[in-house]
Amino acid sequence: MATRTITVELGDRSYPIVIGSGLLDGGFDLSEHVAATDCLIVSNETVAPLYLDKLIANLDGCTVESMNLPDGEAFKTIDAATTVLDKLVSARANRDTTVIALGGGVVGDIAGFAAACYMRGVAFIQVPTTLLAQVDSSVGGKTGVNHPQGKNLIGAFHQPRIVLADIDTLSTLPDRELSAGLAEVIKYGAIADGAFLTWLEENMSALLDKQADALSYAIGRSCEIKADIVAEDEHEAGRRAVLNFGHTFGHAIEHCQGYGEWLHGEAVAAGMIMAAELSGIGADQVQRLRDLIDRAGLPVKPPQIAAAKLLQAMSRDKKVRQKELRFVVLRELGDAFVTSEFDEALLHKICGAGG
Amino acid sequence: MATRTITVELGDRSYPIVIGSGLLDGGFDLSEHVAATDCLIVSNETVAPLYLDKLIANLDGCTVESMNLPDGEAFKTIDAATTVLDKLVSARANRDTTVIALGGGVVGDIAGFAAACYMRGVAFIQVPTTLLAQVDSSVGGKTGVNHPQGKNLIGAFHQPRIVLADIDTLSTLPDRELSAGLAEVIKYGAIADGAFLTWLEENMSALLDKQADALSYAIGRSCEIKADIVAEDEHEAGRRAVLNFGHTFGHAIEHCQGYGEWLHGEAVAAGMIMAAELSGIGADQVQRLRDLIDRAGLPVKPPQIAAAKLLQAMSRDKKVRQKELRFVVLRELGDAFVTSEFDEALLHKICGAGG
Repeated sequence: MATRTITVELGDRSYPIVIGSGLLDGGFDLSEHVAATDCLIVSNETVAPLYLDKLIANLDGCTVESMNLPDGEAFKTIDAATTVLDKLVSARANRDTTVIALGGGVVGDIAGFAAACYMRGVAFIQVPTTLLAQVDSSVGGKTGVNHPQGKNLIGAFHQPRIVLADIDTLSTLPDRELSAGLAEVIKYGAIADGAFLTWLEENMSALLDKQADALSYAIGRSCEIKADIVAEDEHEAGRRAVLNFGHTFGHAIEHCQGYGEWLHGEAVAAGMIMAAELSGIGADQVQRLRDLIDRAGLPVKPPQIAAAKLLQAMSRDKKVRQKELRFVVLRELGDAFVTSEFDEALLHKICGAGG
Repeated sequence: MATRTITVELGDRSYPIVIGSGLLDGGFDLSEHVAATDCLIVSNETVAPLYLDKLIANLDGCTVESMNLPDGEAFKTIDAATTVLDKLVSARANRDTTVIALGGGVVGDIAGFAAACYMRGVAFIQVPTTLLAQVDSSVGGKTGVNHPQGKNLIGAFHQPRIVLADIDTLSTLPDRELSAGLAEVIKYGAIADGAFLTWLEENMSALLDKQADALSYAIGRSCEIKADIVAEDEHEAGRRAVLNFGHTFGHAIEHCQGYGEWLHGEAVAAGMIMAAELSGIGADQVQRLRDLIDRAGLPVKPPQIAAAKLLQAMSRDKKVRQKELRFVVLRELGDAFVTSEFDEALLHKICGAGG
């Protein structure tokens, strides 16, 4: 299977996303992308035993240190970022050190934030090992940690030098996490590419079977869509917010449940259907999205949470401006936009439909 | 006395430094520079009682919250930044909130770092009330906190929207802190402007007497020099490092003494003489710098610290690249450059001359 390379066009901070098979088995020389020679690999207890040695073998000639974070969204805290900073300090890392995240979105977000803050920014590389991280969190430069009162409230924009997505790492990914990643893949179709959504309908079985060609295409197309949007609006002044389709609801679900109950992708899946319902598009289109999400093994409605509690959690969303709640909604499947105009009664009804 | 405005040219992130008298007494409408209407003023226990009410009066029509940090470099910690982030969260601050730092360099560095991290960056305004902050720390976008193992190891580049430097606030500044600020003023002359250095020699008495015209000129010229260098090299890839003249030594002195023993400017003053000695310029030039620093009421040699300890602390400097120690040295007074080539024996001798 051929390796695909997608470029995120950000001027002198442009970088490649390399997607392929066998990349960590000596198929890619990552040492060329390291700032100097010193690297700190940040991974977690689950991923490191599987892929750390392979990654180090791809860093020929580098001086490599490594550390593990605890696994799970519940540990995406400022304290976790501080442990990475402490490790950089104790390793006497300088400005020319490179932080490499090996793992899923949590590892990438924490390691990236630490890389952004250490000496006001050192080089950063993403080696995502979950589908969610490969199609979403490793691309676009958003890094950060959660605050007890809200998700990703503390962070930085810090673009990686390269994203290396070896689809072989998905072979060890639990089915539930594969599905969670598919939520974001479906999102790209829903917000920007109706034809991709059709392709997903036709290839969902192949994706769930982890067929390499299907995965490679889906990851590549997802990254292309995200890269285009990020290139247009790196710091989310406008259009980039459409990438949060389903996320205002999803983040509120995660917040009300406590992080770690549902996976992020699961909350986003239910959130996308809620956002589609709020969009006022035809019921047949909402049903089409619901069917696809259902086939991906994802929840199609929120858990039982009081509507008032969900609404309260949403008021803390980062898209809120001038105290006004904003949602990403659909003109039709494949075309999303951000609005602060929505049917308030419908919103309450949607928020009360969990269980 | 006329108000001076100096622009830091950074494309769409350009901003003005406004220097003058009476600015906080209704002489300047700061509300026009706020992102929306919500503001959080971050100050400290010493400055807030003097200037908080005045500042709020300049924010007509805004919704203002405020908080105080403990006063002093010893409190420039990640925990302090977290208290600002907690305050933003509890105030339900959104992306369009504005963080305003009212105080010296410590307040500005902490508040700026919190503004950089909150929701991956919210608007930031600096209202510096010490000479050091007016000529140095409030200009150029460096924000951050100290790590127990080293100064400013954790931070971000986050440019303010405006810097409002009211020289009237210097009337309450203790003499020792005025002198500490003059260390940075002298630095600008030493690294970039021999004529300014001569002006300082001629006007040192007026500055120590806090004469408004002299202060205004010195602050303005200092900010011009810094603004030019920052515009050329915002993220310190090269030339900006000359702003650290005296700082490699100075930071090491502060680290070995424990932060808060000497003021930053005092450590930099002694550090500048050490750096001048390392430069290999004529003894008469070193003596000229020493005399000026002495007249400014600043130390002309480091405290008693073992040379080995100072050298060890310097190896942690952020300018270290590829394990190589680098220094800002002088070609002559008024012309500085960065080098990794220096006389090792001379460095040891200079480091052992404290007491």
